[in-house]
Amino acid sequence: MGNTFGHLFRITTWGESHGGGVGVVIDGCPPRIELDESDVQPDLDRRRPGQSSIVTPRKESDTVQILSGTFEGRTLGTPIAMWVKNEDQRSEAYSEMATKFRPSHADYTYQAKYGIRAWPGGGRTSARETIGRVAAGAVARKLLRLRWGVQILACVTQVQDIATTIDPDTFTSAATESNIVRCPDAAVAERMIARIEQRRTEGDSVGGIVLGVARNVPVGWGDPVFDRLEADLAKAMLSLPASKGFDIGSGFAGISLTGREHNDAIRNADGRVRTVTNRSGGIQGGISNGETIHFRVAFKPVATVMHEQDTVDIEGNNTVLKGRGRHDPCVLPRAVPMVEAMTALVLVDHALRHEAQCGGDQRPTRAN
Amino acid sequence: MGNTFGHLFRITTWGESHGGGVGVVIDGCPPRIELDESDVQPDLDRRRPGQSSIVTPRKESDTVQILSGTFEGRTLGTPIAMWVKNEDQRSEAYSEMATKFRPSHADYTYQAKYGIRAWPGGGRTSARETIGRVAAGAVARKLLRLRWGVQILACVTQVQDIATTIDPDTFTSAATESNIVRCPDAAVAERMIARIEQRRTEGDSVGGIVLGVARNVPVGWGDPVFDRLEADLAKAMLSLPASKGFDIGSGFAGISLTGREHNDAIRNADGRVRTVTNRSGGIQGGISNGETIHFRVAFKPVATVMHEQDTVDIEGNNTVLKGRGRHDPCVLPRAVPMVEAMTALVLVDHALRHEAQCGGDQRPTRAN
Amino acid sequence: MGNTFGHLFRITTWGESHGGGVGVVIDGCPPRIELDESDVQPDLDRRRPGQSSIVTPRKESDTVQILSGTFEGRTLGTPIAMWVKNEDQRSEAYSEMATKFRPSHADYTYQAKYGIRAWPGGGRTSARETIGRVAAGAVARKLLRLRWGVQILACVTQVQDIATTIDPDTFTSAATESNIVRCPDAAVAERMIARIEQRRTEGDSVGGIVLGVARNVPVGWGDPVFDRLEADLAKAMLSLPASKGFDIGSGFAGISLTGREHNDAIRNADGRVRTVTNRSGGIQGGISNGETIHFRVAFKPVATVMHEQDTVDIEGNNTVLKGRGRHDPCVLPRAVPMVEAMTALVLVDHALRHEAQCGGDQRPTRAN
Amino acid sequence: MGNTFGHLFRITTWGESHGGGVGVVIDGCPPRIELDESDVQPDLDRRRPGQSSIVTPRKESDTVQILSGTFEGRTLGTPIAMWVKNEDQRSEAYSEMATKFRPSHADYTYQAKYGIRAWPGGGRTSARETIGRVAAGAVARKLLRLRWGVQILACVTQVQDIATTIDPDTFTSAATESNIVRCPDAAVAERMIARIEQRRTEGDSVGGIVLGVARNVPVGWGDPVFDRLEADLAKAMLSLPASKGFDIGSGFAGISLTGREHNDAIRNADGRVRTVTNRSGGIQGGISNGETIHFRVAFKPVATVMHEQDTVDIEGNNTVLKGRGRHDPCVLPRAVPMVEAMTALVLVDHALRHEAQCGGDQRPTRAN
Repeated sequence: MGNTFGHLFRITTWGESHGGGVGVVIDGCPPRIELDESDVQPDLDRRRPGQSSIVTPRKESDTVQILSGTFEGRTLGTPIAMWVKNEDQRSEAYSEMATKFRPSHADYTYQAKYGIRAWPGGGRTSARETIGRVAAGAVARKLLRLRWGVQILACVTQVQDIATTIDPDTFTSAATESNIVRCPDAAVAERMIARIEQRRTEGDSVGGIVLGVARNVPVGWGDPVFDRLEADLAKAMLSLPASKGFDIGSGFAGISLTGREHNDAIRNADGRVRTVTNRSGGIQGGISNGETIHFRVAFKPVATVMHEQDTVDIEGNNTVLKGRGRHDPCVLPRAVPMVEAMTALVLVDHALRHEAQCGGDQRPTRAN
Repeated sequence: MGNTFGHLFRITTWGESHGGGVGVVIDGCPPRIELDESDVQPDLDRRRPGQSSIVTPRKESDTVQILSGTFEGRTLGTPIAMWVKNEDQRSEAYSEMATKFRPSHADYTYQAKYGIRAWPGGGRTSARETIGRVAAGAVARKLLRLRWGVQILACVTQVQDIATTIDPDTFTSAATESNIVRCPDAAVAERMIARIEQRRTEGDSVGGIVLGVARNVPVGWGDPVFDRLEADLAKAMLSLPASKGFDIGSGFAGISLTGREHNDAIRNADGRVRTVTNRSGGIQGGISNGETIHFRVAFKPVATVMHEQDTVDIEGNNTVLKGRGRHDPCVLPRAVPMVEAMTALVLVDHALRHEAQCGGDQRPTRAN
Repeated sequence: MGNTFGHLFRITTWGESHGGGVGVVIDGCPPRIELDESDVQPDLDRRRPGQSSIVTPRKESDTVQILSGTFEGRTLGTPIAMWVKNEDQRSEAYSEMATKFRPSHADYTYQAKYGIRAWPGGGRTSARETIGRVAAGAVARKLLRLRWGVQILACVTQVQDIATTIDPDTFTSAATESNIVRCPDAAVAERMIARIEQRRTEGDSVGGIVLGVARNVPVGWGDPVFDRLEADLAKAMLSLPASKGFDIGSGFAGISLTGREHNDAIRNADGRVRTVTNRSGGIQGGISNGETIHFRVAFKPVATVMHEQDTVDIEGNNTVLKGRGRHDPCVLPRAVPMVEAMTALVLVDHALRHEAQCGGDQRPTRAN
Repeated sequence: MGNTFGHLFRITTWGESHGGGVGVVIDGCPPRIELDESDVQPDLDRRRPGQSSIVTPRKESDTVQILSGTFEGRTLGTPIAMWVKNEDQRSEAYSEMATKFRPSHADYTYQAKYGIRAWPGGGRTSARETIGRVAAGAVARKLLRLRWGVQILACVTQVQDIATTIDPDTFTSAATESNIVRCPDAAVAERMIARIEQRRTEGDSVGGIVLGVARNVPVGWGDPVFDRLEADLAKAMLSLPASKGFDIGSGFAGISLTGREHNDAIRNADGRVRTVTNRSGGIQGGISNGETIHFRVAFKPVATVMHEQDTVDIEGNNTVLKGRGRHDPCVLPRAVPMVEAMTALVLVDHALRHEAQCGGDQRPTRAN
């Protein structure tokens, strides 16, 4: 269980690091959307290993194949199955993992829960698992853009202690993609890249923060009380490997303010109800208010480091383990498309939910 | 939609601030658990208004009644319906809310989404909605304690900029309950109380941080990849009114460390696999590792303040609105039982899910 | 688990025969539908005991109260909680049930599954459980009628071996309600009533068949492959107490025909695609085709008879048990509103699902 | 939506008749079950075309490949993805289907619902869709057999008007598989085969009845009130292509009896609570009672016949269409493994649900 996400635009991912591949089935995609592999591959390319000098040098093309759910280039309304074959599989690099638990990885917990684990490459705990999410997210993004004009972006705003402030309303995807760390602030990006390269040289690793953004989201998406939009976003983000925190709008920083200081005043702006500030992060009471949705996701430093660390083996004996093989010194650049994908999946699901409950004849044409 | 939480221990809450009351139905509770109202009322009493000088002075006894699902003091395995009547209803205090949207409340988004809203007392957006959660959470907590020995606690660690550090492994419920702000650090609690009273006097409000903790959770709960334990906790916490952020273990603060510094070394401790530090927060790869689960929840300052603020009315005209009536200057003390309840609901659901997939004949007796 | 039905228009029922009452929570109802108790009570009155000489003489008014989800007479889009108090509770009539299992009732299976059961009145296995369904179904029917012009009816077509043929396209609710057995064929109805009264006099009971019908259902409702419209109808009907079978369109009788004889030819009828015959029962491949949906539900003879029958007690000893108290000699007349309610719940759920996936900008305006 | 089945042992199927193939993802399978392709292929072989002279002569090997979820021959507890490539694709045989709706097929309803359809081979409406179900069902059957000793069988009991009576408690799989129509009554099987061959020669088709059976099911599976075991079986069976009816135990035939005649007396049989007769079909009140579960499924005659039939084209013009290509004259023999698969999927899901709610420390050791 636990491998399905969404209620109406529902994805189920599958696959281990080694084996037949990784994939996803999307159920509930509306029909007649133009779709082929070229809609999906670019996001997978932004996620894949080997794309730059600051990510793992593993060589995997991660070429996606759509196996079902489309006909003559358009979606059928039936399940869309997508598959990426596994390629660069060097099990020998992982042989020590068969008997020793990597610290701060999920080796021990998988072994304890299931009594078995696919140790080569981390099996299901490998970041390869996110391929299915990113592929499905690409479909969700296209649908959101085509039907509602929603724009989804993410970028890196912090690497270890190197941080910058990015305006959620204005940064561009072009700026984000203009450097390999995916931080739209070029000057800070350079420092981030240098830091990542330094840590890699030291056999160490770093974490950081990704900013997630959705612009032009219509008013009214989100289902209180449990399926608030921010609650589903929080779940989506905390389901990503290595993520440790989420906050929306003013988030943890907003605590220092009083209510008077923190509240978003409301004004009529050219006939549209707008907030003057956006400390709510585009969501009030679990429902989008038409402002830009923005939130932060904290990613811990990568757990695999090239130094001996204390651990136990599968028999429970104390031992040491040193990272080997090809690993990311920092997950952030590759996390950007993951954050975008999960954001898109949450939003498209709520778009369809809103259509179901409040659409049709019931569609409100104005606030009252 | 959106009013059901959980997969196997599934709760559905209902009710508005004004009207017949608020309640919850629990479906999936195991049979033969001793249960009556006295198991539930204490947590509701910790949540209810009027309990101290720093919360809203509204007078509601919030007396729970179990309508179904028990027989001769034990659960039947059938749905448990619980109901709390609404009492202290002064609609007139809210009459201005009928036509004006309160800033940073959900008035506008509800109106825009549904084209209608129950404005007296905030309707479904009222914190009264959490009564159903707290009642169901009390049942979940009892079950967790009886069957698995799990202990769930929460406490306030920060009010505006007044913060303290609490050890998740050792603080006691008694210390938390020894003061009205529910911070186990008595000295800091005094300062927090003073600050809240000051803000109330100013007609203003504050937010803060609640620490959530679960001790003695067995190894193996949680369902990767989407239903990771931390992902479901994040959703649960962000579904609470006024919450703006969640992090687990080292969380946002962990970003400053490198991987070498951050990793939790693993050791055999008297035959049990333990981590030396607990930056993972008791969860690795989405599955509990047997260490104490600890996380933080950020709550924004209460949106209702006793000052005029810019807003629009339901016709879209600019206007001002000033808070009236009886409100909490700080939601934190009453949020503590809410955080505990949602934590319990997440854990009990995963306990049963684990039982289903990995229990029975398949129960692993040791790590391998 | 198992007390929730539906995906988008989702109902959760609760309650035992004795105790605080029975009820239902509807989640996902569209907002701004006019709704008060008068929309729900008539169907409950058709379901309640004591309504005629051929049903149980128990005296229960089954008065419904809407506790939440409406405001000023319209739905809010929030959960609608409805409650019917238990009244005529004579536990003493059931005392033998505390220790003996009634044959062909669920006493033994509940006891074995849960290790406990609410024996007074049958607890959760009582037909009182269906009150929540009928109440929710009344809301669903109103919504179907208002928004899509769908008409839902049911009637009795067979009591033991006394059968009639009713045309699904033309029989009226008035004809059905014109006699106490709810068979629109008045002559046959008289014979049915006589048979039921005879069996009651003998201390015996009978079963029969209910015809369920939905007219004017739009083309396109239903979600292959698992959530075919007929599959969800089958589940809905087999979830009713005492039901033993379901077939749709030509059903079991269609087996005697060959494909050439059985197929529904398709014709353009005044610009609308119609089938000449309707052996498909209004559904092809799991999706409504615009013809009248019609199906049959078999109900077994009532298990409680006023004669000694072999059984065992809770200790496993062989014994005998004789029915006591006030029971229906035939469940059929009261099953009619139950079948209607479940039909409405299935259809409204699929209406909203269709709106979600195929509505909005994607709505097809013609077949291609 | 609608392509996922099950709550805890959850399958999602995908694939059209033509395209990349068909497949299934199983989520929730317990870990450490021995599993490879050889556990699945035999059931697919019983389902595949070309297996005998009375089914379609299409040549497809339907070779299954397990892509994920196993390691060294055992299940991991992670999603099990299985895939069967499409092979014998002759789109030209179907070209007329591009513009004309086949009577009593789902061409028109798919086109009307989705505004698009994959016409070659029927796309998603093809019986190839059931490959994923049968593959997943094979895993479910193995698990049921290994862990609970449950035995699942099905057989053909009627073809058009040629019927036999089969004892659910005693017929063998060997007898069923001893002839190509899968009827354990050899003499009747010969007549059935002759009838099917006759109808095929006439360019016509026939339907019939499959008996589904589950033996040795433990007492206590099933979740009232909506997820009764018979309700989920009914849904499962009505979700199969061409199925039109379902009844359990005495079913439609039981209506002729009175309650006294129909009730299953209960006796202590060597310390076990048993029913003397089994008109309940192994389920009482939605919960298994330990007797053999038996039910019937009606399948209509195959819709494709080799004669001109009235229909309309995609522009709405009246026209005629004559079946071409290679089709089954009778779906029954190939439906047997489908019925077994769906039965297994329902039972294993309820087995795990029962484990979750009533297992563990709460497991009842005897009836009281």
